[in-house]
Amino acid sequence: MIRVGIVGGTGYTGVELLRLLLGHPQVRLEAITSRAEAGRLVADIYPNLRGYTDLRFSDPAETGLAGCDAVLYATPNGISMAAARELLAAGVRIVDLAADFRLRDPAIWERWYGMPHACPELLEEAVYGLPELNREHIRSARIVANPGCYPTAALLGLIPLLERRLVAPESIIADCKSGASGAGRKAAVGFLLCEASESVKAYGVSGHRHLPEIRQSLEEVAGGPVGITFVPHLTPMIRGIHATLYARLEDATIDLQAVYASRYGGEPFVDVLEPGSYPETRNVRGANLCHVAVHRPQDGDTVVVLSVIDNLVKGAAGQAIQNLNLMFGLDETLGLGGIALLP
Amino acid sequence: MIRVGIVGGTGYTGVELLRLLLGHPQVRLEAITSRAEAGRLVADIYPNLRGYTDLRFSDPAETGLAGCDAVLYATPNGISMAAARELLAAGVRIVDLAADFRLRDPAIWERWYGMPHACPELLEEAVYGLPELNREHIRSARIVANPGCYPTAALLGLIPLLERRLVAPESIIADCKSGASGAGRKAAVGFLLCEASESVKAYGVSGHRHLPEIRQSLEEVAGGPVGITFVPHLTPMIRGIHATLYARLEDATIDLQAVYASRYGGEPFVDVLEPGSYPETRNVRGANLCHVAVHRPQDGDTVVVLSVIDNLVKGAAGQAIQNLNLMFGLDETLGLGGIALLP
Amino acid sequence: MIRVGIVGGTGYTGVELLRLLLGHPQVRLEAITSRAEAGRLVADIYPNLRGYTDLRFSDPAETGLAGCDAVLYATPNGISMAAARELLAAGVRIVDLAADFRLRDPAIWERWYGMPHACPELLEEAVYGLPELNREHIRSARIVANPGCYPTAALLGLIPLLERRLVAPESIIADCKSGASGAGRKAAVGFLLCEASESVKAYGVSGHRHLPEIRQSLEEVAGGPVGITFVPHLTPMIRGIHATLYARLEDATIDLQAVYASRYGGEPFVDVLEPGSYPETRNVRGANLCHVAVHRPQDGDTVVVLSVIDNLVKGAAGQAIQNLNLMFGLDETLGLGGIALLP
Amino acid sequence: MIRVGIVGGTGYTGVELLRLLLGHPQVRLEAITSRAEAGRLVADIYPNLRGYTDLRFSDPAETGLAGCDAVLYATPNGISMAAARELLAAGVRIVDLAADFRLRDPAIWERWYGMPHACPELLEEAVYGLPELNREHIRSARIVANPGCYPTAALLGLIPLLERRLVAPESIIADCKSGASGAGRKAAVGFLLCEASESVKAYGVSGHRHLPEIRQSLEEVAGGPVGITFVPHLTPMIRGIHATLYARLEDATIDLQAVYASRYGGEPFVDVLEPGSYPETRNVRGANLCHVAVHRPQDGDTVVVLSVIDNLVKGAAGQAIQNLNLMFGLDETLGLGGIALLP
Repeated sequence: MIRVGIVGGTGYTGVELLRLLLGHPQVRLEAITSRAEAGRLVADIYPNLRGYTDLRFSDPAETGLAGCDAVLYATPNGISMAAARELLAAGVRIVDLAADFRLRDPAIWERWYGMPHACPELLEEAVYGLPELNREHIRSARIVANPGCYPTAALLGLIPLLERRLVAPESIIADCKSGASGAGRKAAVGFLLCEASESVKAYGVSGHRHLPEIRQSLEEVAGGPVGITFVPHLTPMIRGIHATLYARLEDATIDLQAVYASRYGGEPFVDVLEPGSYPETRNVRGANLCHVAVHRPQDGDTVVVLSVIDNLVKGAAGQAIQNLNLMFGLDETLGLGGIALLP
Repeated sequence: MIRVGIVGGTGYTGVELLRLLLGHPQVRLEAITSRAEAGRLVADIYPNLRGYTDLRFSDPAETGLAGCDAVLYATPNGISMAAARELLAAGVRIVDLAADFRLRDPAIWERWYGMPHACPELLEEAVYGLPELNREHIRSARIVANPGCYPTAALLGLIPLLERRLVAPESIIADCKSGASGAGRKAAVGFLLCEASESVKAYGVSGHRHLPEIRQSLEEVAGGPVGITFVPHLTPMIRGIHATLYARLEDATIDLQAVYASRYGGEPFVDVLEPGSYPETRNVRGANLCHVAVHRPQDGDTVVVLSVIDNLVKGAAGQAIQNLNLMFGLDETLGLGGIALLP
Repeated sequence: MIRVGIVGGTGYTGVELLRLLLGHPQVRLEAITSRAEAGRLVADIYPNLRGYTDLRFSDPAETGLAGCDAVLYATPNGISMAAARELLAAGVRIVDLAADFRLRDPAIWERWYGMPHACPELLEEAVYGLPELNREHIRSARIVANPGCYPTAALLGLIPLLERRLVAPESIIADCKSGASGAGRKAAVGFLLCEASESVKAYGVSGHRHLPEIRQSLEEVAGGPVGITFVPHLTPMIRGIHATLYARLEDATIDLQAVYASRYGGEPFVDVLEPGSYPETRNVRGANLCHVAVHRPQDGDTVVVLSVIDNLVKGAAGQAIQNLNLMFGLDETLGLGGIALLP
Repeated sequence: MIRVGIVGGTGYTGVELLRLLLGHPQVRLEAITSRAEAGRLVADIYPNLRGYTDLRFSDPAETGLAGCDAVLYATPNGISMAAARELLAAGVRIVDLAADFRLRDPAIWERWYGMPHACPELLEEAVYGLPELNREHIRSARIVANPGCYPTAALLGLIPLLERRLVAPESIIADCKSGASGAGRKAAVGFLLCEASESVKAYGVSGHRHLPEIRQSLEEVAGGPVGITFVPHLTPMIRGIHATLYARLEDATIDLQAVYASRYGGEPFVDVLEPGSYPETRNVRGANLCHVAVHRPQDGDTVVVLSVIDNLVKGAAGQAIQNLNLMFGLDETLGLGGIALLP
């Protein structure tokens, strides 16, 4: 049994980690911390967990996380980097669901996140936790930077194209639509039901923090500079991301369906749909899956890739557990077999 | 392993049966029939099942259901009663998720369902499959009539009051709010997103088929006539029933919380919330649970019981599996341990 | 032209007042105040008003409301009562959309609202602004207490029954379902899209502030004590209230449809639907209307009245303008002719 | 007064025409036809119109449309072209809200719509009814082809760029998100609340009928071939289209904001938002408006235009009335002054 602690468990990622970990056969949940809710039963805040756990939130300062095998950070940015050195020294491995370790270059990180990095020397060591890209490095990593939700959807859709240099790398477009849970469980007027339902809007066009994250992985994959325009949108649903990805084909003779089928044939959590298919976010709601379809409208030189995930599962908690499984030598799919809830 | 067949699997109850049964450790799914979709992969219609099953819908006429241990009917009313005698003769046990066997009196059944009953002699034998009421009879039943969704929510809320004759039986009110999935997956203008979202309406006030079903069980429990007004409402969500139940207390000194806690203390799937609590349908979304809270406004003589279920789980497919487990001597909770999906 | 000022215009009631008043032919909007947003263009916060007004929010302390003919308060409770004496002395008439003047008895008001009343002597003078009940008094009132949203829906449904003493007054039930806009535009976790959509829950069962308000009017109408159980519910939509009202008939021979048709025959904003009809909240979305239907299930002794309004229009801003029209001798329907937005 | 007839009034476009025309001071509604609902009160099907009209649907075969000044077609494709010659001969002018007259080239029309065109000689004469593009031609037109909803949103966003040849015309991308009302009021499983809510999906990637319509106008504006990839998406809301438009700038020094401000400065129904703004579909819900914002992420060579409309108003019924006003020499904004309903 892996002894796991969760730091910052009151958000949507936290409850999703709990939902999944409470059904994981090789994990023992040691602690879940929350400064604000310390002492309170987890099931009081998340009544869906009534009867499944007696766990209480504990104060992070009083929680002996050093006794865990792994600690998962479901915190705002800036928390995990402050604790990382100490935990690593104690032999604890870290999966950070926040952004502290996602960018390799401290200067870029600091520009986008607006604060100095507390342990820039660890950025090099941290592994970007997209198993479909970095599976082997994840197995031995001490720190895994769990990818953002938009990057997960966009990268899984684009990697096959850039890896094989099938498209022009300088003008890729990622038009992404997200449900409201991506914004977390903070009280904010813009995410009230009366503000966010029955409406669609774009945001962050001038620069969203997931942009450098997407670009970094695409450039590693492409082996050179990548120009990408990323526009996230808020859509009136709770869960789900739909990435619609556009690129210009360099070679019009390639069998794109075969490229995707071959790239993801062995992947347990990426499912390439039949030609002509349209993935729907609801088909993966609650499941650690990415459904991908590749289209080439009117047989032209534009490829359109449609990629959907549940932002809280494959885009956060589920992927973190997939990484945890890899780090501890378990079957990668352990605890992640739940079927999406439809309708 | 129990060999199970499903008849009529293309509706929402059908896909929910599949979602739950594919994770059930003691069930082998032998067949799922659909006249309209015969030959088609189940996962083509329900892409959430991609990767979980290779099953295809089969034509009911060509499907050897007699080789099953149990057959679950997720059909329109009138189908299971036509096949029941033959299946029973072959030693197959039946869980009917439709209404064919829910009313004991053939005359009442025929009045509400507007057709002659095909096997009235079996109505007496069939057991009403609310385990919290009829657990022992279910164990040995050949036919279990799985309760309707509204009756499940209303009965679990009202049984403790009527069983102990704590309220006046002649003027009970059940004001119930349902999501749209209760209406099934048929193409009907009234259930289009543009018609049913952003609105609430009542329906069936003059007489809904779940009324005699609720009354029958309440009268058995109360040991006498019960007068109940039942008003169902359509609310803009997919899953969930919220029953708000009103009755007049005969004895103002009774500790209602204790009554409910004691009545449901041993029940795995009924959870009595703390005093002052408000159950929310989302807390049981996808789970085989009923959350109940009991209130007595201003310490007056009106008791208000709040009872929520997922209409597709405890109100249909989950309860059917609970019944199946009982019928075959399995742990009643087998395959039903999934945590509700929140948010 | 009536010179009108609005105090506290940043909430949903405020924007709805603006939407309606900007189209009112006899109103000139003099000022709209907001301490938090002083100086900011109204259309910056409510972009639906772009191009319709150049008005800016002003600081209430610097706004000469005494120069208005009427001031509308769309504020939290406790604000209008602090300013009422001074405004009245200046000859300004008040429509209070908050609750400061809704209860006649200061002691009851203070118990429910948890603060001392600033001008109890005005409670007697203030007129409860339900035109269908108090039209003549409203015409000459200096202070009109605009009714709450739930009370408007419940009272319009119940008044015909109690006025003519057709039902037992001691055991009335008002089961009400509201959209989320009733809670206002404050940042609160419970009203986030991720918390309030796809779910239904009751609240305030132990005692909601609209209860004494409903009871007060019902008792005036009935001429004696009325016992009412009021349970509000939050449903996943933006606008709308559906009141489902239950009472026990004293006289089973009465023609209820005729009672309602006659009571509301001359009312411009109450529409009695044909027998057997089901009002839907969407049919009055954005309109100053109440749709009512009366049912008597199975010809028994329980009457079920279904009453729907848009909580922001007939339940707040529209009704305030209806009152304003009456107070200033205008056609009661002026500025209120907009058709509901469907779908 | 203009005497107007509506053909095919039972769909969402029909009810929206009614809502707007019933408030139009210069229109007298002569007839509204529906074969299926002939004889039935319009307000029975659309209860939001109760009290606003006594009109009944009439059988088209028995309705003397030749006596109208104008006939609006809110029908499926293929109906208006069958009647056009006869009506024109009778001196009736036509606004076709269907697609029969949108494409100039009969061969292209027939390829996309899969039927022969009934009056190809009229395609040349018909005017594409986007007033911001063809205002003067619309004034004198006998047939106006009211634009599709997606084309309206996409064209208003793209015209300023192509008109002045600011972007590369060969690789434009229009990623569009629509509410469900765009699909109409037909009973179809895919648009049930249970199927279409809580999900986002793309469709029609291989070729949507609005693609040639968008391309035709863009090519007229650009004076040469235009390559455009158009991907429509279904999002879980009733009304609204959000077009996110991407193009590559040819000249990086241009002041895009000034281009849009100048192009649309005199337009009553196109509102160019301030730099850095994000239009939301809800801000134009129910209004005949297009809100546009222009962005240039990271000052690169990709321009991103965000354009929102209400698909039933500026994308259908409202625009039809705007065209009608122009055709009959009225103030273009008559009857179109309603403020969007927010929240």
